[in-house]
Amino acid sequence: MLGQMMYQQLTTSSLIKHAANYHGETGVVSVETSGGIENSNWKTVELNARKLASALEKLGIKQGDRCATIAWNNRRHLEIYFGVAGAGMVCHTMNPRLHPEQMIYIANHAEDQVMFLDKTFLGFAAKLGEHFKSVKHYILMGPRDEESAAMVDGLLFYDELLETGDADYQWPEIDETTPSSLCYTSGTTGNPKGVLYTHRSTVLHSIGGNQPDGLALSAKDTVLPVVPMFHVNAWGVPYITAMAGCKLVLPGPGMDGESLAKLITGEKVTIALGVPTIWLGLLAAFESTGLKPDTLKRTVVGGSALPPFMIAEFRDKYDVELIHAWGMTETSPLGTINQLLEKHLTLSNDEQAQQRLGQGRPPWGVELRIVDENGALLPNDGETQGDLQIRGPWIVDTYFKSKASALTEDGWFDTGDVATLDGDGYMIIRDRSKDIIKSGGEWISTVELENIAIAHPAIANAAAIAAIHKKWDERPVIIAVIAEGSSVTEEEIIAYYDGKIAKWQTPDKVIFVDELPLGATGKVLKNKLREEHGNCLIG
Amino acid sequence: MLGQMMYQQLTTSSLIKHAANYHGETGVVSVETSGGIENSNWKTVELNARKLASALEKLGIKQGDRCATIAWNNRRHLEIYFGVAGAGMVCHTMNPRLHPEQMIYIANHAEDQVMFLDKTFLGFAAKLGEHFKSVKHYILMGPRDEESAAMVDGLLFYDELLETGDADYQWPEIDETTPSSLCYTSGTTGNPKGVLYTHRSTVLHSIGGNQPDGLALSAKDTVLPVVPMFHVNAWGVPYITAMAGCKLVLPGPGMDGESLAKLITGEKVTIALGVPTIWLGLLAAFESTGLKPDTLKRTVVGGSALPPFMIAEFRDKYDVELIHAWGMTETSPLGTINQLLEKHLTLSNDEQAQQRLGQGRPPWGVELRIVDENGALLPNDGETQGDLQIRGPWIVDTYFKSKASALTEDGWFDTGDVATLDGDGYMIIRDRSKDIIKSGGEWISTVELENIAIAHPAIANAAAIAAIHKKWDERPVIIAVIAEGSSVTEEEIIAYYDGKIAKWQTPDKVIFVDELPLGATGKVLKNKLREEHGNCLIG
Repeated sequence: MLGQMMYQQLTTSSLIKHAANYHGETGVVSVETSGGIENSNWKTVELNARKLASALEKLGIKQGDRCATIAWNNRRHLEIYFGVAGAGMVCHTMNPRLHPEQMIYIANHAEDQVMFLDKTFLGFAAKLGEHFKSVKHYILMGPRDEESAAMVDGLLFYDELLETGDADYQWPEIDETTPSSLCYTSGTTGNPKGVLYTHRSTVLHSIGGNQPDGLALSAKDTVLPVVPMFHVNAWGVPYITAMAGCKLVLPGPGMDGESLAKLITGEKVTIALGVPTIWLGLLAAFESTGLKPDTLKRTVVGGSALPPFMIAEFRDKYDVELIHAWGMTETSPLGTINQLLEKHLTLSNDEQAQQRLGQGRPPWGVELRIVDENGALLPNDGETQGDLQIRGPWIVDTYFKSKASALTEDGWFDTGDVATLDGDGYMIIRDRSKDIIKSGGEWISTVELENIAIAHPAIANAAAIAAIHKKWDERPVIIAVIAEGSSVTEEEIIAYYDGKIAKWQTPDKVIFVDELPLGATGKVLKNKLREEHGNCLIG
Repeated sequence: MLGQMMYQQLTTSSLIKHAANYHGETGVVSVETSGGIENSNWKTVELNARKLASALEKLGIKQGDRCATIAWNNRRHLEIYFGVAGAGMVCHTMNPRLHPEQMIYIANHAEDQVMFLDKTFLGFAAKLGEHFKSVKHYILMGPRDEESAAMVDGLLFYDELLETGDADYQWPEIDETTPSSLCYTSGTTGNPKGVLYTHRSTVLHSIGGNQPDGLALSAKDTVLPVVPMFHVNAWGVPYITAMAGCKLVLPGPGMDGESLAKLITGEKVTIALGVPTIWLGLLAAFESTGLKPDTLKRTVVGGSALPPFMIAEFRDKYDVELIHAWGMTETSPLGTINQLLEKHLTLSNDEQAQQRLGQGRPPWGVELRIVDENGALLPNDGETQGDLQIRGPWIVDTYFKSKASALTEDGWFDTGDVATLDGDGYMIIRDRSKDIIKSGGEWISTVELENIAIAHPAIANAAAIAAIHKKWDERPVIIAVIAEGSSVTEEEIIAYYDGKIAKWQTPDKVIFVDELPLGATGKVLKNKLREEHGNCLIG
């Protein structure tokens, strides 16, 4: 027996249509690549997205075709998100920080037909264009500009292209299981892998992820996604703000603390989202400029572990709530978010901050479990560490063009993280499973060792790695960068661990270096460090 | 091309599983039909729901079979919601306030196989049982009780039945388009019609309706649904609270102001939901008992128009936000909810209250339009009145067992209401389309006339109807009940309209009666009044 309610496909066009119909005058503010601030609104963004969809069809682009972007967070990028996917094509956001070889691999693997570029990145088309085998059209995201036209043969201009589109274009009915966007993971080993999001997964992630205990964006909010739109769909914020009718502020290329501080105060931002590094810069800028984020209620932080002092700093100096969230490209990305339960409300500020340091608990739609090396379920006791696995309607099933499932035999995605889970589902990432140090059968978390080293005033940055050991198999070694103008000895660092962790977890050695090798998303490349220093205890 | 994300069926069992996994210890408090307060939690509710599902299968109940309930808001009713639907059967909630003939029609039309009864309603089974043709098992919602057993042959007892269920029962995989629950509308004319909700419509209504600008329930909340579970699934609150991990307080039969005031203060309720009449009783009880709802943050009100003074009363006396929402059995029910936009935040308290008196704006998932008699689209200018039509993934398509679509040719459901819509989607119901008064080609809203009459201190209740008129086709007449101990004349009431509405809208006549005829859900039966008084101007 079938139920008898309307069946409507869950599509991203329903999100932007809602914004245009009921929040048409609500602002979309965009910092242009050329510098100035541009004011638009959802009605115009939706109109332009429809014109773009129409113009792409006239260019011969078909449903399912991939259209790449290499761009900052700005209004045209937002229109491309909705216009491309709304027409049934696939919006493929590329990370400009990748190595050129990876970018070539990705564009060819995706078979991108079109490439949209901000002026900053036009050089990619000029330099790498001959290697992008499938790209038929390069489109500069702006008005006509002869200097750019001279750089790339046949270059199209977004603003001109839009004018070829039909303003009466209507969003087509498309099946919710068709793809809407594509992001590649930047693995530290092997070729990047593509995650092909569907309209259904994107809409469910939007409504499921924006619950009051999720991102909690409302039409009363002004939202600043500092997380790039080339990074897991900017955590879904473009979709969620359309659905919720928020004022949206897109920061363009200006991700430095001072630019952000000015934007937050100037546009009366209430909620901002980004990685910890961004907030470090912002806190420094508030300090140096004296700007006060009076309207800012909260920031959402993800992408890497949260420095412990940051919650108190935001809370005590600026009355801003810092919310820790966790996810991956493969998880759309929202996997967990650290919102308190009713029983935590009577805790002290410091106890609440302690509770909020972890990655948080899953919203409806996400299930988590931890397992041992044999796949056997481990207890959710907050102490037992295991491989973190996840499932839900916005989690990857199969990588793009892969024939093999990305899942375990019983249908879970293994995150590659080692974590603990407690009885309420609060999850704490203890390590990447390939990074964790296995010493005499016990596991030592590199994250914990690094947090202690970084807390030392003379240390600017540090990474813990597993070095091969004859007796214990592996033992921890710290690779550290000394802060400018400071000095410290290996013995002092090792002594600094005293009383902070168990004796047997204390690093065997500290190696000082000038800098740590970083990947495209700013993460330390630990495999490089292991190659270089992994034999230092047996050498 | 298909996208490559996990495809999971959207089912109500995913909601209760989430509650059990991540909010297992969170309380479910239930006022028993026998009086006392019972404390349970989501883990137990989910376990019992699985045992119930298993026990029903052992009784021979099959997927798709309807299981009726006639019950208050309590823990067992909650378990039936999830146990019946989770097993793939259909939870059919019956309204005990209907006329016995309607209940017989409904039970037979639904072909209910099982009927769950609270002790209060056991009389229905005893008296009407011979007419309930399809019911194989009557189940009293409680422990064994010999007095009840003597009333109904073969009566089963819920608590005993549960013990026959398998605690290891696993929720089956069921398709999201299969039905989960069934509610009948209590039309004032014709036979009741069934709305057959699907798992998909219910889950989308839960996540779509619980956005920050929707019901906005969080795991920090303690939620009291006073709206009955036999009325449009208690507005979806049982599903939403499971999904969000709220503490849930079920008030049982005690819907009077004093019982509710005690429950709110005793259980530290933060959010309560119900019809305006309930809140009138609650306000009176706060006044008379001196109880203060210190924890209560907001109440959600729907089901009929909001008395204008109520927002200020809750706000000024108790610091409680009153939120107006609108929906119907056919709309799951959330159609609109009155949450402010950013631009309203600078308005004064009184201006905000004025904005909040209307029915509010649609969340994502709901589209609204108004049309004229020929189905032509009317402008969203806040002034033009038209027939209100709605569509979305939680709106009815076809009534249960009907072959004809319930929709217009282009796929919208006509609500039977006359409304205005403004540019932001704020909707105000002006009348039922069958009630509105058509005088000389112009429309006069009965709601507006009634609000003025009821505001007169000597009037306890009033209804405006269309009376037949030789020159103007129809003219307004007020049917009014004088407040106890007051007196007032027809001339005084007519004079009271002076300056409040246009002269030509002023009622031609006032007729005083002892009471107004009410339907099963407390609404005035205007068709009865029209039968009786519709000719009073031509008599």
